[in-house]
Amino acid sequence: MPETIPQDSVGIVEPRHVQLAEPLALDCGRTLEQYEVVYETYGELNADASNAVLVCHALSGDHHAAGYHSRDDRKPGWWEACIGPGKPIDTRRFFVVSPNNIGSCKGSTGPNTINPETGRYYGPDFPIVTCADWVRQQERLMRLLGIDQWAAVVGPSLGGMQVMQWAIDYPQRLRHAVVIAAAPKLTAQNIAFNEIARQAITSDPEFHNGRYYEHGVVPRRGLMLARMLGHITYLSDDALRAKFGRELRAGRLSYSFDSEFQVESYLRYQGRQFVDRFDANSYLLMTKSLDYFDPAAAAGDDLARALAPAQARFLILSFTSDWRFSPARSREIVKALLDNHKRVTYAEIEANQGHDTFLLPIPQYLAAFGAYMERVAAEAIPPQGATA
Amino acid sequence: MPETIPQDSVGIVEPRHVQLAEPLALDCGRTLEQYEVVYETYGELNADASNAVLVCHALSGDHHAAGYHSRDDRKPGWWEACIGPGKPIDTRRFFVVSPNNIGSCKGSTGPNTINPETGRYYGPDFPIVTCADWVRQQERLMRLLGIDQWAAVVGPSLGGMQVMQWAIDYPQRLRHAVVIAAAPKLTAQNIAFNEIARQAITSDPEFHNGRYYEHGVVPRRGLMLARMLGHITYLSDDALRAKFGRELRAGRLSYSFDSEFQVESYLRYQGRQFVDRFDANSYLLMTKSLDYFDPAAAAGDDLARALAPAQARFLILSFTSDWRFSPARSREIVKALLDNHKRVTYAEIEANQGHDTFLLPIPQYLAAFGAYMERVAAEAIPPQGATA
Repeated sequence: MPETIPQDSVGIVEPRHVQLAEPLALDCGRTLEQYEVVYETYGELNADASNAVLVCHALSGDHHAAGYHSRDDRKPGWWEACIGPGKPIDTRRFFVVSPNNIGSCKGSTGPNTINPETGRYYGPDFPIVTCADWVRQQERLMRLLGIDQWAAVVGPSLGGMQVMQWAIDYPQRLRHAVVIAAAPKLTAQNIAFNEIARQAITSDPEFHNGRYYEHGVVPRRGLMLARMLGHITYLSDDALRAKFGRELRAGRLSYSFDSEFQVESYLRYQGRQFVDRFDANSYLLMTKSLDYFDPAAAAGDDLARALAPAQARFLILSFTSDWRFSPARSREIVKALLDNHKRVTYAEIEANQGHDTFLLPIPQYLAAFGAYMERVAAEAIPPQGATA
Repeated sequence: MPETIPQDSVGIVEPRHVQLAEPLALDCGRTLEQYEVVYETYGELNADASNAVLVCHALSGDHHAAGYHSRDDRKPGWWEACIGPGKPIDTRRFFVVSPNNIGSCKGSTGPNTINPETGRYYGPDFPIVTCADWVRQQERLMRLLGIDQWAAVVGPSLGGMQVMQWAIDYPQRLRHAVVIAAAPKLTAQNIAFNEIARQAITSDPEFHNGRYYEHGVVPRRGLMLARMLGHITYLSDDALRAKFGRELRAGRLSYSFDSEFQVESYLRYQGRQFVDRFDANSYLLMTKSLDYFDPAAAAGDDLARALAPAQARFLILSFTSDWRFSPARSREIVKALLDNHKRVTYAEIEANQGHDTFLLPIPQYLAAFGAYMERVAAEAIPPQGATA
């Protein structure tokens, strides 16, 4: 952490753990009898609990969305750019709830936790989870925290898919839905990239059918490949060009298979880093959840019909250089909402950084996101709720 | 092979092998003292050797560009759509020379052949080869066949890069240069995809530092992943959508990690097929050759300056849905040629099939390519050369 905590950070935060004993019926047909959820909160819940904002995380995200865990912490939470005093999700006005989804590997029940029924790691026995399952999990936490209705549910990428699911499944329980850099479903190409990532992991001899914990190994090579591949799809071609171009590490061609172009060593570094902070079984589950998200499927492939129950007002944000979930995909959501005469604001942010732009403090992005959240606060929070 | 040979096929063809004893100095600084080249020819060389067309193959291509090897052969050569009587490269008029590049695995000297100096497989000892090296190799073959000047040098993708190199390195030795679905150099993103493919291969425990031949294994998993990844970049998102959409193999979600969407099983099939027909060390070499191609580098990063020596007239073809080497990349070549006041024809073919369109009999593509080759024939071949 910097010597002094930046003024616009929520500062030191602490994750909380809660054990949920009410069984959770999953889309796959199985039931989790009990499970743990880890979450963080930032800001204060006001007296009538009208200022709560739920943050839904993306594939490799977690509950640690903002602030620092200790004074030694070198990096803040993943969405530090957007959560904090004076930021789009202004913690002087909102009470922010940021849970870790089950199936992930950051503290909530998932493949790398012990299955109480067997006393072993869940590993490959952990059920396939969907966005709808996560939304049910988040609704349980909501009740536990004494919140009846979210001022807004907000999420980028896979998080944005959970936001859509919230609007469909619990229309009365949120006033605003903020969907950033998402899509109404994956394309065949998106699924194909995910499938290669999964194949990379499951074909690693150290995967051991998902029971690698018990073998004291991790499928490093596979997970590293999966992440490298993901990473290309998160960055735009422009961003890679701007960052590396065709620059050579040694200034000249080596005529060898060593990491030679800057972009190669960058990818290898990213892949290696990821192996130390993410679990391969969770990666499999997260990609599968992405593949499965398709709310229109149950409505005769009609996204407008799928979104018809939604009562929330929507903000849809996309980034021009995002080729993973391009602006065209966001416009599909906008169109389906307009076909239903829903209230929707759409902003296409000019940015060169690709899908990962949602993490970055791009002024136009923060301005559009912040202006919308300003309205959310002004409309919904009683004047006494707006404490400094 | 079909029961009867199609009228527009060159029919049964036979590869020829030639041993080249004149040492070949390579860009990497090493020299191949001797090497073998396998090639095929179609059509007849005319009396003044003015009707010869050189075909340069792409990454996984080879010398077998057209026709069938036997009556039992189930598939014709890779460019059957474009080579044959009445096709764009009309074998009634042209004498077509199609060599296999060294470093490949289809018969010319490469990692899967024996190094005469050691009596072992070359494997990882095979030198890194470049487009310029291949052009030198092709020029040797040219002399051997008694050809002074090509009527045209033609190639798609990595083959198109060899065509550019020909025009730069041997400006007097070709009259026309036909560059299809290529680029003046790879982007950082292109290199990143290649790097992941290479990492997939070299991190496979059965790679054995490239000496897998001697271990009686092949890095199947790695090569399969590399091909699956390549395959996504060869097809457009539209093509994948048209082919598979989000169709499920079993008609419903399985909530498991089995191959579930049609696109997944298709990719796995493509990957498995490839392992049986291609060598992992060659795959490494071919991707490296792609990464290294950058004729402008030696001319102060000025492509126009790099292409200044060229004397050939150019046809540049691109496909609208090609996101590997997009039309914008072809237009860079066109612009550099126009800046030099070179004669260039450019056609951007409307096609949904992505980079691999160059393999397909798309009418607009065949028409544009055929019309140009018609002019090549009419201008360059004396009337008596145009035998039926």
